[in-house]
Amino acid sequence: MKKRIAKVDRQRELKERLSKDPFLTDEELTQIFNVSIQTIRLDRLELGIPELRERVKNVAEKNYSKVRSLGGKEIIGELIDLELGKSGISILETNGNMAFEKTNIIRGHHIFAQAESIAMAVIDAEVALTGVANIKYKTPVKAGNKLVAKAEVVRKRGNKFFVHVFIFESQKEVFRGKFILVSMK
Amino acid sequence: MKKRIAKVDRQRELKERLSKDPFLTDEELTQIFNVSIQTIRLDRLELGIPELRERVKNVAEKNYSKVRSLGGKEIIGELIDLELGKSGISILETNGNMAFEKTNIIRGHHIFAQAESIAMAVIDAEVALTGVANIKYKTPVKAGNKLVAKAEVVRKRGNKFFVHVFIFESQKEVFRGKFILVSMK
Repeated sequence: MKKRIAKVDRQRELKERLSKDPFLTDEELTQIFNVSIQTIRLDRLELGIPELRERVKNVAEKNYSKVRSLGGKEIIGELIDLELGKSGISILETNGNMAFEKTNIIRGHHIFAQAESIAMAVIDAEVALTGVANIKYKTPVKAGNKLVAKAEVVRKRGNKFFVHVFIFESQKEVFRGKFILVSMK
Repeated sequence: MKKRIAKVDRQRELKERLSKDPFLTDEELTQIFNVSIQTIRLDRLELGIPELRERVKNVAEKNYSKVRSLGGKEIIGELIDLELGKSGISILETNGNMAFEKTNIIRGHHIFAQAESIAMAVIDAEVALTGVANIKYKTPVKAGNKLVAKAEVVRKRGNKFFVHVFIFESQKEVFRGKFILVSMK
């Protein structure tokens, strides 16, 4: 177990950590600093840092306007980073509606939808469709967990875009997919 | 253009065709018999054959009870044929909500969801997850079109099921996928 640190030091480090990764949950922060969730919330309040949902939304809004191939509301997950034609990151907060009744494990097609969305969002094309996808589910995801999808355009040949997508849950890779998207115009 | 045939012959053939393929639409039947849609509807009425939606539902209800790995409502599409452990067929009526705003073309993940569902429905396992999928979209599908997915279990090795899925729209292949599903117990 980590030793607790002085409040002033904790708040300085908290600010620094959240500036590097604005999508750390309060729960993750309690583990990092070994304090209660109330302490974290109080820290955020004192530092003027909004809750996760707000932070995600703030970042996402700046990114939607960059996307060419999709309408902003068509992306499954919140788009939190985008360099058009290169790479992008989205976050999906999973819930029970996306899961199998029996096991509470998120159904494959929801994870696929997040991956396909971010793959499509990153390419610099007006209209595109998925041509081919080779995908692998590596670890089951429980409902309620937060998925971070990272997409990278690895090659462009003619009207074909080759995009790799990796999805993580708490730093652990749960899915990887290779997509070939075809630009229609 | 085909010559029209006498009503009695048409109704006999209509009955025969629908017994072989209960999922022919009235529109498809007008083309087969070169008559108006009103004529087809009247023929069905006289023959006591319900409309497509009813026919699909009747067949589907018999099949849901056979599925082991999924809750009945969890299948994307109507399950119209199922031989557990071997093969299955589902139908998905697509609509505008499943399509891209710009193009009215059905989004890939909805087609994937139908494919993954039927793949999961056919296997003889209590709980299963998708491990790997290699998929190919062959032709864009416009909103409103009816998709027929056919799944076949091609191999079982240990707790792994290898399932091939082909999806057709008006006999034309629009999607094919190879799935490896992993049984969890």
